[in-house]
Amino acid sequence: MVSEEIERLISLLAKLPGLGPRSARRAALALIKRKETLMEPLAKSMASAAMAIKTCTTCGNLDTRDPCKLCQDPRRDAKTLCVVEDVADLWALERTASYSGRYHVLGGTLSALDGVGPDDLSIPKLIVRASSETISEVILATNATVDGQTTAHYIADRLADANVIISGLAHGVPVGGELDYLDDGTLSAALKARRPV
Amino acid sequence: MVSEEIERLISLLAKLPGLGPRSARRAALALIKRKETLMEPLAKSMASAAMAIKTCTTCGNLDTRDPCKLCQDPRRDAKTLCVVEDVADLWALERTASYSGRYHVLGGTLSALDGVGPDDLSIPKLIVRASSETISEVILATNATVDGQTTAHYIADRLADANVIISGLAHGVPVGGELDYLDDGTLSAALKARRPV
Repeated sequence: MVSEEIERLISLLAKLPGLGPRSARRAALALIKRKETLMEPLAKSMASAAMAIKTCTTCGNLDTRDPCKLCQDPRRDAKTLCVVEDVADLWALERTASYSGRYHVLGGTLSALDGVGPDDLSIPKLIVRASSETISEVILATNATVDGQTTAHYIADRLADANVIISGLAHGVPVGGELDYLDDGTLSAALKARRPV
Repeated sequence: MVSEEIERLISLLAKLPGLGPRSARRAALALIKRKETLMEPLAKSMASAAMAIKTCTTCGNLDTRDPCKLCQDPRRDAKTLCVVEDVADLWALERTASYSGRYHVLGGTLSALDGVGPDDLSIPKLIVRASSETISEVILATNATVDGQTTAHYIADRLADANVIISGLAHGVPVGGELDYLDDGTLSAALKARRPV
């Protein structure tokens, strides 16, 4: 007996990751209650984002321009490419403010199970980019999962003949982490990669 | 370095209940990736909901018409009023499909701590409604919390002179619930209110 208008809003909200039917109802109510301060601005923001945001044809980032801000920024090191699975990973790296090179977003990982091959990702584009003369280092920053590491290995193989340094993120104890709570794999990787203090 | 457009979308999404900064980022990415199938329909649905949905001046329900569908429905029993704290509670009761009377949404609970008095809720309106000749029963369906029960007691006091039956929801073992996991208060209430089988 809920109004169709609200029903539709709830069912669309429930499609967002992290929102189930119950939290979608709560979100819909919150939106309706804060019509002027939340619902209208959010509707406008979504409509304008849907219009404005495109995928960068160079690196796969999302931005209002193409090439994206990161690809156009002359202050960023054009010799280093950081390969990530997803735009979310690019955002995570950008938040650290400790990387100033360019990115390459794969759009996923290789997966035999799901039938995802190199041509389904932007791997061919990466090979072309990495083989250009300007690039001197490719950082493989895929996730430390089986799929992520398989993809990294595959890319490293394909780039073996290109004249670039290939590197990967370090494994080890997370900053602030306690050894007792760490999984064995990470701990043994941290031990193997120990460094003089 | 994330585009301002996306930054704004994330910060608005983070205001929804149940979404923190991290899940708001995931939601924003999901929206951008599903532009045609999710972001645009959701933007439209929000904009039209913001336009169309109003609060029913009779009962406080949210609907596209005023009086709302429930107040206008001639098949619903106009002699019974079910008093709830919030529209979400009204929705919850409607989903059970086991109530066919009218509603009255208070818009919250009395709270000395937060300075919420009877006049901040739609209690005066309820007293007027309940005192009219058509109403024969008022069901107090506020939450079984301290604030909810205080509010129910207050309303029951105020309605003592009105010629209506005042009832409350039964307390007891939730259907499908296990005694071992139940809190003591609920269990002793269920025991006190035991019924012949």
